[in-house]
Amino acid sequence: MSREGAVGNKPKGPLSTTSTPSHFHNERQLLAPTETGMARLSLTDADAKVRKWFAEEVQKLGCALSIDQMGNMFARQSGSKKSSAPMIAMGSHLDTQPRGGRYDGILGVIAALEVLRTMKENNFKTNYDVGIVNWTNEEGARFPKSMCSSGVWAGAIPIQKAWDLRDIHDPNVTLRSELERHGYLGDIACSSDPATGFTLGAHFELHIEQGPILQETGRSIGIVQGAQGYRWLTVTVKGKDAHTGTTPLSARHDAMLAASKMIVASNAIAKRHDALASTGIIRVPSNASTNTLPSDVTFTLDIRHPEDRAVHAVQEEFLKAFATISSEDGRGVSFDWTLDTDSPAVKFDQGCVESIKAVADHIVGPGKSMYMTSGAGHDTVYTSKHCPSAMIFVPCRDGVSHHPTEYCTPEDCALGTQALLEAVVHYDQTRAKTANGI
Amino acid sequence: MSREGAVGNKPKGPLSTTSTPSHFHNERQLLAPTETGMARLSLTDADAKVRKWFAEEVQKLGCALSIDQMGNMFARQSGSKKSSAPMIAMGSHLDTQPRGGRYDGILGVIAALEVLRTMKENNFKTNYDVGIVNWTNEEGARFPKSMCSSGVWAGAIPIQKAWDLRDIHDPNVTLRSELERHGYLGDIACSSDPATGFTLGAHFELHIEQGPILQETGRSIGIVQGAQGYRWLTVTVKGKDAHTGTTPLSARHDAMLAASKMIVASNAIAKRHDALASTGIIRVPSNASTNTLPSDVTFTLDIRHPEDRAVHAVQEEFLKAFATISSEDGRGVSFDWTLDTDSPAVKFDQGCVESIKAVADHIVGPGKSMYMTSGAGHDTVYTSKHCPSAMIFVPCRDGVSHHPTEYCTPEDCALGTQALLEAVVHYDQTRAKTANGI
Repeated sequence: MSREGAVGNKPKGPLSTTSTPSHFHNERQLLAPTETGMARLSLTDADAKVRKWFAEEVQKLGCALSIDQMGNMFARQSGSKKSSAPMIAMGSHLDTQPRGGRYDGILGVIAALEVLRTMKENNFKTNYDVGIVNWTNEEGARFPKSMCSSGVWAGAIPIQKAWDLRDIHDPNVTLRSELERHGYLGDIACSSDPATGFTLGAHFELHIEQGPILQETGRSIGIVQGAQGYRWLTVTVKGKDAHTGTTPLSARHDAMLAASKMIVASNAIAKRHDALASTGIIRVPSNASTNTLPSDVTFTLDIRHPEDRAVHAVQEEFLKAFATISSEDGRGVSFDWTLDTDSPAVKFDQGCVESIKAVADHIVGPGKSMYMTSGAGHDTVYTSKHCPSAMIFVPCRDGVSHHPTEYCTPEDCALGTQALLEAVVHYDQTRAKTANGI
Repeated sequence: MSREGAVGNKPKGPLSTTSTPSHFHNERQLLAPTETGMARLSLTDADAKVRKWFAEEVQKLGCALSIDQMGNMFARQSGSKKSSAPMIAMGSHLDTQPRGGRYDGILGVIAALEVLRTMKENNFKTNYDVGIVNWTNEEGARFPKSMCSSGVWAGAIPIQKAWDLRDIHDPNVTLRSELERHGYLGDIACSSDPATGFTLGAHFELHIEQGPILQETGRSIGIVQGAQGYRWLTVTVKGKDAHTGTTPLSARHDAMLAASKMIVASNAIAKRHDALASTGIIRVPSNASTNTLPSDVTFTLDIRHPEDRAVHAVQEEFLKAFATISSEDGRGVSFDWTLDTDSPAVKFDQGCVESIKAVADHIVGPGKSMYMTSGAGHDTVYTSKHCPSAMIFVPCRDGVSHHPTEYCTPEDCALGTQALLEAVVHYDQTRAKTANGI
C-alpha cells in the first residue's frame, strides 16, 4: 500500500463518533482507541451517520452509489474498458454487535474504501468496474437474522420476511420502518438478477478471522476457500425425577449423568474426525433442586466440518454413541433429538481463491499465509451462490471478536488491505485476459 | 392387628377432605382413592382441619393433648405404672408437599393413632406412658425449612428463625402468624428440656421408604439404623466464551466439556465407594447460545453415604479428579467450589433398633425385613439427638414419593403399623425390665 498505515493506525471520523459506553474503557489498562469497541446496531442513528459518511467518501472518489430495497449500498467505480459487465465488488458490513469490536465487518468496508482511494491517488484504473458493498444488518443483532441482506440479495431470504423483522427491544420498529426513516429503502430490487437488482461480477471480503489459528501459527493472511458445514441439534434426555438420597444408582433413570456422558462422547468423536462439536446451552426443568434428579435434560450440539459428509458422519456416530449411553447406567434413559439448523459447507470460487493465493505469496510469502475454512458465517457465503467469491482473513488477537477488545494490529490491517487491493487487480487482469482470449 | 385393614384400605374423613386438584385424577387409569395425592401445606386451613380431627380422635381415646410453641401436638396416653417418666412417642407429620402423596408423614401419624386405638380396644396398657407426636411443617414446603419443628424441639433451629419463616407465596404471612391464626401457638416451650418443654422417652417413626430398595428386594419392613451423611457442593467451572465455529478444540477453554466430565467422574467415583453422587442443577449464563461456548458452567453435587468418612473421602477424590479434568482439554479451565450443606451421618439408638428388629423377625420373618439407612431427612433425625429413636420403613411403589401417585399397599401399611405397635410394646417392656433390674 502506498498510503502507509492509513488503515488501522488512527481512527477516522466515523470510527469514533459512535463511541461505546464508558465502562468498556476500564476493562483493560492502556487501551488504544481501536480497542475500545463499537456499538453500532443496524439502521440506528449511529448507523445512519456512518452510512452518510460512507456515501460522501465514495462520491468524493467519483463512484456511483446505488441503494437497493434492503438498504445495501453499492459504490461503483468505472473501469478503463467502460464495460457494462458487473463490477468486481469488495464487500462487508458497517453494523456491529451491541458490545462489538471495531474490526468485524468494518475492516472490510474501510479497507475497500482505502483500495479505491489508493487506486485514485495512483491514477490506477482497473479494466472492469470495481466497487464496494456495505451490506445491511449482517450481524442480525438488532433485527434478528444474520447475513440478512446478502441473504435477500441471494434469494435465500424472502424480502418481506426481512422487512418484517422487529427490533429485539422495540416490537413497534421493523427493519423496513427503519429503512424508511433513514431514507435507505432504495429503488432497485435487492437481488442478484441483472434485470431488476444490482448484480456483481465477483465478491471479495477482507475480514478478521474471529478465531486464533492465524495468530497461533504466526500467519498474516488466511486464504479462505469456503465455509464449514454445520448442523445444530437439540437433544433431550428423558430420565425420571427421583430423590438423590433414597434412589440407589442402580435404580436411577439419571438424565443428567447420561447428558454429561453424551457431551463428553460428542467431543471425543469430533476430535477423531477433526471436526468441531460444542454444547452452548444445557437446561434442566425449572423446578430442579440439589436433592432431586432432574426428570430431563436438554442440550444443544453444534457440529462443524469443512466437508458435509464429515458433518453427517459425525452426527451419525453421535447418535449411535448416545443410544449406547442411554442404556449404560441404572435403569437407563431415553432421548429425542431435533435438527434445528442444517447449513451445508460452502466452497468459494477457485478463481477468486487463486487470485488471493497469488497475491498473498507475493505480499507475505507462502510461509506467512495459509488456506483456511471460515468457521463463522459471512455475507460472502451468500454472494458465493451468485457470483465468484472468496475471502481474506487477517489475525485477530486471541481469536476474540464480538467484544470491545477485539483487535487486529495496524500492520495486519495494512497487509490485509494490500492483499484485497492486489487480489481485485489480479482478478480483474485475469478476467481481461480471459475476455481477450489470452 | 386386630382391626383388619383399618389402615390403608379406605381413607378416613381427613384423608379425603383436602382433595387435590382434579387434573391429578387423570394421570393414571383406575386410581384408588389412596393414589390421588394430597395437598395439605403446613398451617393452612386444610392442615387446621386435620389437626382438629386428630385432636378429637386422641381425646376420644383418653389422651392428654399438649401443644408447644411451634404447634407440635403431643398426645399422651397413661401407662399402667402411672410413671412420670417421659412417654414413648410415635411421631411423624400430617403436612404434605403441594403436590404430595397420602403416605409420606401421614402414615406415621395415622398408624400411631391406630396403635392407640388397638391397645384401647384390647384393654392393653403399656407400663409407661405412650403417645403420638404430630410435628409441624416437616416438609418445609410452605415455610421453607424442612423438619422445622422437630429441629426447634431439638435445639438445632432457633425458634425465632422458625417463627419468622415466610409463606413462599405470601411474604406477609409468617409461620408464627399462622400458628396464632389457627390457635396453635401453644403454651409450652418447643424443647426437649423437661423443665420447660415436652420431653420424650423414645421416638419411633413409621414412614414409607421413599426409595425402591424394599420393593426391589421383596421386603416388607425396613429397620432403619440411621440416616446417611450428606454434603452439598456447588461447583463453578470457569472457561472462556468463544465462537463454536472459529475456535479449534485445541484453543478452547471449554467449561461445558469440563463440567460434563466432572459429572461423569463423580458418578464413577461414588460407585466405587458405594456412595451416591447426584447433580440436580446445572446452569450456563443467561446469554448462552448454540454457537457460543459458555464462559462458565455451574452445577450442584449431592454426595451421600451412611459413614461420614466415606462422604469426606468421596469429596476428596472428586476434587482431585476435577483438578485433573481441568487441564485435560484444549487450554484448560479453572474451577471453584463451595460447601453449601454438611449434614453428618446419624446413628439411631441401638435399643430402639433392636426392638424393631425383634418384632420384624416375629411379624414377617428375617427374610422379609432388612436393616437400612435413611436417604432422606425425617423428624426422627432430630429427635435422635435427645431421646432414643429409630424408624420403620415400609415399601412405596417404585420408590415414588412427593407425588400424587405415591402408594403403599394396604397390606404393607398394616404390617408397618403392626411393627410400630409391637416395637413400642417391646421397648416399653424392655424399659420396665431394666427399671426393675431384670
